[in-house]
Amino acid sequence: MVDTLSRLEDVIRSRKGGDPDASYVAKLFAKGRGKIAAKLGEEATETVIAALSESDEALTGEAADLLFHLLVLLAERDVPLGNVLAELDRRDGVSGLVEKAARLD
Amino acid sequence: MVDTLSRLEDVIRSRKGGDPDASYVAKLFAKGRGKIAAKLGEEATETVIAALSESDEALTGEAADLLFHLLVLLAERDVPLGNVLAELDRRDGVSGLVEKAARLD
Amino acid sequence: MVDTLSRLEDVIRSRKGGDPDASYVAKLFAKGRGKIAAKLGEEATETVIAALSESDEALTGEAADLLFHLLVLLAERDVPLGNVLAELDRRDGVSGLVEKAARLD
Amino acid sequence: MVDTLSRLEDVIRSRKGGDPDASYVAKLFAKGRGKIAAKLGEEATETVIAALSESDEALTGEAADLLFHLLVLLAERDVPLGNVLAELDRRDGVSGLVEKAARLD
Repeated sequence: MVDTLSRLEDVIRSRKGGDPDASYVAKLFAKGRGKIAAKLGEEATETVIAALSESDEALTGEAADLLFHLLVLLAERDVPLGNVLAELDRRDGVSGLVEKAARLD
Repeated sequence: MVDTLSRLEDVIRSRKGGDPDASYVAKLFAKGRGKIAAKLGEEATETVIAALSESDEALTGEAADLLFHLLVLLAERDVPLGNVLAELDRRDGVSGLVEKAARLD
Repeated sequence: MVDTLSRLEDVIRSRKGGDPDASYVAKLFAKGRGKIAAKLGEEATETVIAALSESDEALTGEAADLLFHLLVLLAERDVPLGNVLAELDRRDGVSGLVEKAARLD
Repeated sequence: MVDTLSRLEDVIRSRKGGDPDASYVAKLFAKGRGKIAAKLGEEATETVIAALSESDEALTGEAADLLFHLLVLLAERDVPLGNVLAELDRRDGVSGLVEKAARLD
């Protein structure tokens, strides 16, 4: 898992400022933060729809698209995925997170 | 990274069928797929808003919430996160994904 | 206002079962409920983004897109907009709605 | 229809700057634009979910919630609903909108 997400994050970051005609990610960066955020929202909705009414394969694909665009949005803001994972860890350990989240309900 | 997400996925799965009063995750599972999907959509919107108008720390927290609820939704459907990451890998390797995604634009 | 939304609803309903190549709405109906719902989610995210970071004109356009796709989704389910407006009225009158909503918070 | 939406818009606007403890709308305004936008996104997701997996009554209720929070968001930005409806009209008349939208697909 670490390989996939870390390598993907590296590739995405390397596309910042690249030729928008050369890659989808460079094109997204060229379009700006609003457009990237819109894609995240779009993929989240498609994940919701797949979860409710589509196959496991469709859900897997939509979740992959969602993760991918989350990485692009984080990269656009220069927020490392590692910080997000550290935040998940920080919430008093994994089981602690689950309990703490209960208090946010 | 692998530790965080894998351990979190394990904890979440262990809460399926558990006492809804004992943990937030068990409560979510008890409420059902629609409610979990609604939470994913809610956290995605909050991530969008944080990306556009809030601090790095706020964005980090919202992205953590989004990842967390994505794991819950996948667990509810019994779709392993590993399959999602494999799908990201499968798209012809990481750089291949980025190129393939361009054709989906 | 009544003219705009009622006429728009009528036009949209008249496109159900029509030639997908002849109009955008007929094409949406042909793609099915999931695709229409996805468009609603997409337009909602774009409305959120416009509200936070774009001009009044952009927000106006996105809100129009959102209303338009809400009408398509309701038409796909054969739920009249009139029922939605009646529900807004039903909540003990308009000021009553605002108070009742407070209890849902 | 005009009565419902226009009266609702008037009531919502009258709550701007009001006591957050006295009404749900005044509380939303006090929380600010980000929170109102988050509610819009949340209600849109719930509308999507209701459209896919719930009753007509549930969809009607969620669509009412979505319209309601759209009015609050527009009011927060001081964008009149009339402008949004005029935009729907402006797209070359109602049938014109439907055709024009096809070109945006």
